[in-house]
Amino acid sequence: MLRTHTCGELRLSNKEREVTLCGWVQKSRDLGGMTFIDIRDRYGITQLVFNMKTDAGLCNKARKIGREYVISATGTVKERSNKNLNISTGEIEIMVKELKVLNPSEVPPFTIEEKTDGGEELRMKYRYLDLRRNPMKNNIILRYEMAREVRKYLDSIGFIEIETPVLIKSTPEGARDFVVPSRLKAGEFYALPQSPQTFKQLLMISGFDKYFQIVKCFRDEDFRSDRQPEFTQIDCEMSFVERDDILETFEGLAKHLFKKIKKFDYEGTFPRLPYVEVIEKYGTDKPDTRFEMLVQDITELAKGKGFKIFDSVEYIGGICAKGGAGYSRKQLDALTDFVRKPQIGANGLVYVKLNSDGTVKSSVDKFFSREDLNKWAEKMNGVTGDVLLILAGERTKTLFALSKLRLEMGKQLKLMDKDTFAPLWIVDFPLLEWDEENQRYHAMHHPFTSARKDDHHLFATDPGKIRANAYDLVINGVEIGGGSIRIHDKQEQAEMFRHLGFTKEEAEKQFGFLMNAFQYGAPPHGGIAFGFDRWVALFGGSNSIRDYMAFPKNTAGRDIMIDTPSLLSDEQLKELSLKVVNK
Amino acid sequence: MLRTHTCGELRLSNKEREVTLCGWVQKSRDLGGMTFIDIRDRYGITQLVFNMKTDAGLCNKARKIGREYVISATGTVKERSNKNLNISTGEIEIMVKELKVLNPSEVPPFTIEEKTDGGEELRMKYRYLDLRRNPMKNNIILRYEMAREVRKYLDSIGFIEIETPVLIKSTPEGARDFVVPSRLKAGEFYALPQSPQTFKQLLMISGFDKYFQIVKCFRDEDFRSDRQPEFTQIDCEMSFVERDDILETFEGLAKHLFKKIKKFDYEGTFPRLPYVEVIEKYGTDKPDTRFEMLVQDITELAKGKGFKIFDSVEYIGGICAKGGAGYSRKQLDALTDFVRKPQIGANGLVYVKLNSDGTVKSSVDKFFSREDLNKWAEKMNGVTGDVLLILAGERTKTLFALSKLRLEMGKQLKLMDKDTFAPLWIVDFPLLEWDEENQRYHAMHHPFTSARKDDHHLFATDPGKIRANAYDLVINGVEIGGGSIRIHDKQEQAEMFRHLGFTKEEAEKQFGFLMNAFQYGAPPHGGIAFGFDRWVALFGGSNSIRDYMAFPKNTAGRDIMIDTPSLLSDEQLKELSLKVVNK
Repeated sequence: MLRTHTCGELRLSNKEREVTLCGWVQKSRDLGGMTFIDIRDRYGITQLVFNMKTDAGLCNKARKIGREYVISATGTVKERSNKNLNISTGEIEIMVKELKVLNPSEVPPFTIEEKTDGGEELRMKYRYLDLRRNPMKNNIILRYEMAREVRKYLDSIGFIEIETPVLIKSTPEGARDFVVPSRLKAGEFYALPQSPQTFKQLLMISGFDKYFQIVKCFRDEDFRSDRQPEFTQIDCEMSFVERDDILETFEGLAKHLFKKIKKFDYEGTFPRLPYVEVIEKYGTDKPDTRFEMLVQDITELAKGKGFKIFDSVEYIGGICAKGGAGYSRKQLDALTDFVRKPQIGANGLVYVKLNSDGTVKSSVDKFFSREDLNKWAEKMNGVTGDVLLILAGERTKTLFALSKLRLEMGKQLKLMDKDTFAPLWIVDFPLLEWDEENQRYHAMHHPFTSARKDDHHLFATDPGKIRANAYDLVINGVEIGGGSIRIHDKQEQAEMFRHLGFTKEEAEKQFGFLMNAFQYGAPPHGGIAFGFDRWVALFGGSNSIRDYMAFPKNTAGRDIMIDTPSLLSDEQLKELSLKVVNK
Repeated sequence: MLRTHTCGELRLSNKEREVTLCGWVQKSRDLGGMTFIDIRDRYGITQLVFNMKTDAGLCNKARKIGREYVISATGTVKERSNKNLNISTGEIEIMVKELKVLNPSEVPPFTIEEKTDGGEELRMKYRYLDLRRNPMKNNIILRYEMAREVRKYLDSIGFIEIETPVLIKSTPEGARDFVVPSRLKAGEFYALPQSPQTFKQLLMISGFDKYFQIVKCFRDEDFRSDRQPEFTQIDCEMSFVERDDILETFEGLAKHLFKKIKKFDYEGTFPRLPYVEVIEKYGTDKPDTRFEMLVQDITELAKGKGFKIFDSVEYIGGICAKGGAGYSRKQLDALTDFVRKPQIGANGLVYVKLNSDGTVKSSVDKFFSREDLNKWAEKMNGVTGDVLLILAGERTKTLFALSKLRLEMGKQLKLMDKDTFAPLWIVDFPLLEWDEENQRYHAMHHPFTSARKDDHHLFATDPGKIRANAYDLVINGVEIGGGSIRIHDKQEQAEMFRHLGFTKEEAEKQFGFLMNAFQYGAPPHGGIAFGFDRWVALFGGSNSIRDYMAFPKNTAGRDIMIDTPSLLSDEQLKELSLKVVNK
């Protein structure tokens, strides 16, 4: 080893020891007869000292060394007179005897400090330098620690990790599949998996009753800030289970991560809410439950009082912002602007202030009596000092807008503590979604999801009402994972494909191997998949999954560091029997 | 859970307990008034009993159940009168009260037993059934356990696992890259990594001084029995190290696996041999060192005695097969046929039997005196009872043929004990290989490998003689892994590309981002990558890596279970701006 210790390791107890450290120059300072260099590696920072009086040659050498040079320094551990108690090595310094430049460095394109002056694009291009910064380094370490703890926990309860193939089969539905041309079979293609779904089901049929895999998945779609063309799933499947077994098993995993990574014990069991109820209460199926502020339906109370806007709509609902009666006219106008943004889509905002002096002030005083407004307040649990914020319109759209307004108020009232983690299981998702455009049903989760037994009769009468054996885990408003109990009966699977508008031939062609497998003893099974990148980002306290990947693509799906995607040589294209044509 | 216990769990201590088991019907037997069903899951087999006298209905139901049906059985644990001590549950059986068919099964296309009657093709098509068989199931579990132990060990010594991207950049040299067309950027492509080489080097530049990853890699080449288009590497890299640090670190990993997986403590350190010496002694750089039988050069001794074949060749060498003097004429003829096979390529075989009666019998008695032959025997450590087997010809080819003959004799003389593991580090590989066809040098390992410092002067005079800072780990004749100390200096890397015949522009275009990164403080670093599939196969006792992958491709690169690669729809091709043309 070129070093005896790391830069985060030495303490007063190592005093007078001769050591060799290797690392990068964080910064250097010349103070009269002394030169100080902070040397950095993955583990920390240690101060090196050079004395002009005792070794002018060495000190002069040290003075020529710039930021980010890679150096090796040998010397003696000394107690610092000026201790820095903010860092773990701050009580000591190294009096250097020998200094080697292992590699010089150009001046980096941005400063490599906690906070950097580098723009997004520049930092992506020099990702390897950005990863030297503490916040980025810690993100990557957090990711590793979470992966390690996931594996440790699942291993401890009998799961085994099995690698499924990356070169699989494209399905006509898979407009979002990345494909891979085969050189040996001209004109044929593999596809990269959007998930290992069918393979994990086949593994259940093989008898591996507890499978997991931390696995790359791929989706060729337009990439928003929280999407990447390649992303990582914690993919899990179990046999001989029912829904609650899955929920309990993976609640255990989440609690393990809370404990090991976020260092707290989650008490009790995670709340569970049916989809219908969660939409009613929060306006969204990804609610942030760190704070209450439930949506209340006041349609019955607010209709028929002569306020035309309310009288003509399907739904009127609102939230009560605790302590918000002090909101100024300006603040309320800003909220009105907020809900009118196209991506929120409300037409306007009605407010009712329950002033501390006992008066009630609303934007609809003309149409509603004090008694009317009191009834609203009562329904919405509003008390003196609160403000009621009310939206009206088509039910689904209004609930959506209320969910956004609720989040905004949560933010403004500082109800979203970043150290609080509020998990929620959402269960009983609808099995099918009606697709207006194609006039047919889509599977809300995926076509392998089973319906709740007590809803099977609805296939004949009202398929849209069928509840699936499907569930999501949401933490602080982030959908961390989702899954379902699968169909394991060939006949039931065939019927599901029929409901989804597949012809028998299409179903056979795309999923024949799975349906065939169902004939040879498929066990009851179900599973879940977690978005690992998102979970890491949630625990890291950021919205951007990119910050938690070592080498992500930008929002255009491009790796600007290595500059890809890129053109192939004609030779390569010819070998693949391909020609690029214009769109 | 649909079960209270697994089928491998119950013991006499559970006697009289009411339990529910789920699993597959391994087999059933009707014996007079009793029916027995062996129920199987991942954990074992348990015997179910049905009694015609006490419950004729249930017993009749049981009798209708076929092989591979998935059932659930509830009953009481009873002590068996007829104990089967070969299985861990063999002392008990379940007297069944309730039986459910969870899913019936067609008659499987091959028997699901330790040994099956299914051919290779059929078993690949129904891979999910083949994986139910104990040997295949155990292979997959072995693979998991090895991956787990690799992670555990590397974690314990400070390595962190970091995911590198799967969608990377193709290089013109990369005729063997799989490529992925980009939909967003018509005409541009990603490539799948043959290894994360450049990314792990960038991680070193980022300061992650101990990186590893168990990672899928991809190579689009003709697939032999031990090659797969996608395969798994244990990819590792370290900073601030020299060669011996890497060897010691990963010798530790290998010993950990010997201990945890193969249950033995390897004593001492692994032998290390320079490339030149290993070729001289074994004729190959992948020697099986479970047995000695070294190759000896007898060129000097055997030339100039009037035997024309020997007099005209570059090299004469042989091995001494201990105790082989008893080989019959027929056996020796068979060996001659063996070495003459085109893939071995020798012209003939000379033998010298050192008979137990003191006589010496050789195929070249006419040309060599007893004294001559004694000298050979002495050089080759041959004693009474042995046979010397000698080949002659061009040096490299003859050494290769001797290496094959040595292996064959090792097999015939039963010197390759499957429970013995003989590791060997091979060091000092040549840096460059001369490519006759293109009249230029190739990197023997890869272009990022550094030369030994003491050989740098040879760049000017004899590049072919330069020894690289490169090493392989070979166990029992299988190349398990290899790596090198990398170049970390921009100038040195640029020169290496020049020696390899890259123009400055080509080097810049393909590896500009890495060369650029070298300017910003690249630490000295090096690493190693292990072929995980091969290592698992070695520990599992097989040559075929396919048997240790859950869903491998066949030798044509095809997954015959899901039938891929396959055609894309015109719609998909159009979206990708691609057209398939004839070769």
